[in-house]
Amino acid sequence: MFEKQIYIARRNRLRDKVGSGVVLIPGNTESPMNYPDNTYHFRQDSTFLYLFGLDIPGLFGIIDADSGNDTIFGDDITMEDIIWMGTKPSVKDLAASVGVKNTLPFKELFNSSAHLKDNRIHFIPPYRAENKLLLQEITGIQASLLSTYSSMELIRIMVEMRSAKDREEIAEIEKACETGFKMHLTAMKMAKPGVMEQEIAGTIEGIAHAGGSGTSFPTILTQNGQTLHNHDHSFKLEKGRLMIVDAGAESNMHYASDFTRTIPVGGQFTQKQLDIYNIVLKANNTTTTLIKPGETYLSIHLKAAEVIASGLKELGLMKGDVHEAVANGAHALFFPHGLGHMMGLDVHDMEDYGQIHVGYDDEIHPINQFGTAYLRFGRRLQKDFVITNEPGIYFIPALIEQWEKEKTNNTFINFSKVKDYLDFGGIRLEDDILVTETGARILGNRIPITPDEIGLLQ
Amino acid sequence: MFEKQIYIARRNRLRDKVGSGVVLIPGNTESPMNYPDNTYHFRQDSTFLYLFGLDIPGLFGIIDADSGNDTIFGDDITMEDIIWMGTKPSVKDLAASVGVKNTLPFKELFNSSAHLKDNRIHFIPPYRAENKLLLQEITGIQASLLSTYSSMELIRIMVEMRSAKDREEIAEIEKACETGFKMHLTAMKMAKPGVMEQEIAGTIEGIAHAGGSGTSFPTILTQNGQTLHNHDHSFKLEKGRLMIVDAGAESNMHYASDFTRTIPVGGQFTQKQLDIYNIVLKANNTTTTLIKPGETYLSIHLKAAEVIASGLKELGLMKGDVHEAVANGAHALFFPHGLGHMMGLDVHDMEDYGQIHVGYDDEIHPINQFGTAYLRFGRRLQKDFVITNEPGIYFIPALIEQWEKEKTNNTFINFSKVKDYLDFGGIRLEDDILVTETGARILGNRIPITPDEIGLLQ
Repeated sequence: MFEKQIYIARRNRLRDKVGSGVVLIPGNTESPMNYPDNTYHFRQDSTFLYLFGLDIPGLFGIIDADSGNDTIFGDDITMEDIIWMGTKPSVKDLAASVGVKNTLPFKELFNSSAHLKDNRIHFIPPYRAENKLLLQEITGIQASLLSTYSSMELIRIMVEMRSAKDREEIAEIEKACETGFKMHLTAMKMAKPGVMEQEIAGTIEGIAHAGGSGTSFPTILTQNGQTLHNHDHSFKLEKGRLMIVDAGAESNMHYASDFTRTIPVGGQFTQKQLDIYNIVLKANNTTTTLIKPGETYLSIHLKAAEVIASGLKELGLMKGDVHEAVANGAHALFFPHGLGHMMGLDVHDMEDYGQIHVGYDDEIHPINQFGTAYLRFGRRLQKDFVITNEPGIYFIPALIEQWEKEKTNNTFINFSKVKDYLDFGGIRLEDDILVTETGARILGNRIPITPDEIGLLQ
Repeated sequence: MFEKQIYIARRNRLRDKVGSGVVLIPGNTESPMNYPDNTYHFRQDSTFLYLFGLDIPGLFGIIDADSGNDTIFGDDITMEDIIWMGTKPSVKDLAASVGVKNTLPFKELFNSSAHLKDNRIHFIPPYRAENKLLLQEITGIQASLLSTYSSMELIRIMVEMRSAKDREEIAEIEKACETGFKMHLTAMKMAKPGVMEQEIAGTIEGIAHAGGSGTSFPTILTQNGQTLHNHDHSFKLEKGRLMIVDAGAESNMHYASDFTRTIPVGGQFTQKQLDIYNIVLKANNTTTTLIKPGETYLSIHLKAAEVIASGLKELGLMKGDVHEAVANGAHALFFPHGLGHMMGLDVHDMEDYGQIHVGYDDEIHPINQFGTAYLRFGRRLQKDFVITNEPGIYFIPALIEQWEKEKTNNTFINFSKVKDYLDFGGIRLEDDILVTETGARILGNRIPITPDEIGLLQ
């Protein structure tokens, strides 16, 4: 937990911005795996963490902009709890530790419904079914309509507050990066022919739990990297394949890291792999040099796409004018996703608020073209934003087949040549970047990324 | 997945037993951590796994006892899914692999509501809020009332079917035991003074993911073992403390293991620790010799309590007649939980059905006395039941203080002596046991348990 002044200041800032009404901030409850008492690792809601800092289940925060009062609802523990779960501070003491004076038993939340109905209420769209049921009960709004009636005003304010990271937050992200570094180095060392993907994925997940709160998202670790978010770990690594690892950790305070590396199983790239690898590496390095306050990430995404298209043209996989090819989205056959996303308390920061509200604004609108449409973050960069830089090149047989059949972008794609790559897989290289006053800083120790650095590890 | 004949046979057996009506078996959906698309490891519902075997989210099974038809509802993947998540077999092919001929798109489930309302429907109490909302919509029963209107008939049938384990199931449990063995051996070797609990807990969680589907329940690993289910891993191990590790794995098919060991940080027991340890070890070993078909686990629990009370009397911590002490529940100051529980597809097998329906029956009723009231499983043992054997002794300061103040069982407890143990912590020793034709078999390689075996590891 940060010092309580930080949470007090955040809540006061929110109260000032929202002006009037009542802000409801539900904490998360435990999430059952296969029966009520067998739960996943508890993950507190990020908005609750940001404003109230308390990392335990069963709490609910209310910020009243009219009265100026904050209240935490929650229940103290019983003797039975002490025997099974240990002693815990009282809700009163917990609340005091983050500067909240008022506490009430959880059931009082339901008695405050009448009060709530007289006021403008603000809440973020709930993403857990438990909180949908709870908000339905408190607000009287049907669960399926809660998203519609969530507060755009609150969303805009929270995005504004959480986009630029505090010094303390950046320090936490760097802790998560340190754990991420260990995870990736271990994966690289383990990537020998004959090893099961699951063996490596499990081991690095263990490193994430040993060093913090576990992984920041489900680990992608596969020799079938042509699938962008492949969570299948059932294959045995084969010599000649490329292993993609897209994985990150959470610090104990739930700040994220998110890195991708791609290495040849057994340590040696073939020339064909190296040619593609170097294009992705160039796109990644170019991106880092372009990032600075005032640039839009959409324009940098398109520059990275040009580096990719240009490299693929040199290899004879694409043809025609590179600029025109990117304008037509031809690169997206190979680079069908966005260059990156914001990162903070969530690995896709604030994605529960709605991606479009985090990544776009009145100035920069999303582009509705296959590939770039997946860019999660396009707007103008500001100092202390943290974003990922993750270009990639993939050969997705089903997509190639479809485009060839439908003659999509066939003035820019050399399909006959592309077919030599159907069993290639994919390559993605991802760093976490802090936008500084004048440019960009790669967060954490950069994980080995040049072919030489990778070769030394095997 | 097992062979499809197994699933066909199970569904036919269920259909025969239920006789008429429609059985609803919702599969689980993904469970979000901090925003909708950032999900925990997928855990399929155990009843769905038992009857339909398919381990992917977004499926719903219906077993129609009137028509004799089984149907799986689910959606095929799109090109977008292929790009992001990879190719997958069609729902039709998946269903065929477990012997189900009829499949329908998921949305058809809502069109079948009318049909459902004309029939007696059976469902298990839902434990995930997503499935509560879904069943509310399909059945028309309000979410908060679903548990009340769940089917006792279906619960009784499923308990009957799932209690004795098939040969194939036992083989899966043994795989989970193998992973559990590695977890515990690693923890024992890491338990040096100065190491963080989190470091060890995370590492063994990684072993569970590397060897199967992860941990079967949240790992308990603490030098404060007086708290029975202590999930706090924030302490640095200190010389002289006892580290309790209660942890198990799931096999890739989600069968569980569940073991507890307690070892001295740094490897050497003090005489005081050894005296208590040997009582718990004796209770554990005695239990294994008593387990056989026809015995009730309630009676064995009480025998283990007698071993404990008798040992504590020898040390001067208890006094008076041992038999009488146990009858009065005096042992529960030190052994406040049950001797064990069923284990299978769930670590507390079928706990979502309601513990009382799994652990008790018309013959053996739960005992409403502090300590024994927590015994999850009391009924008569049968061949091929799998149960845990987990006696323990703890010194819980808050409980000791309460009992002394209220003079609870003070004819059997030597409180002045007990106070020398307030900083002792706790000891628990747990094996997984298969009830055989004539007795008991410890599943897996037994994890080192004698003081000599433990000493050799450090």
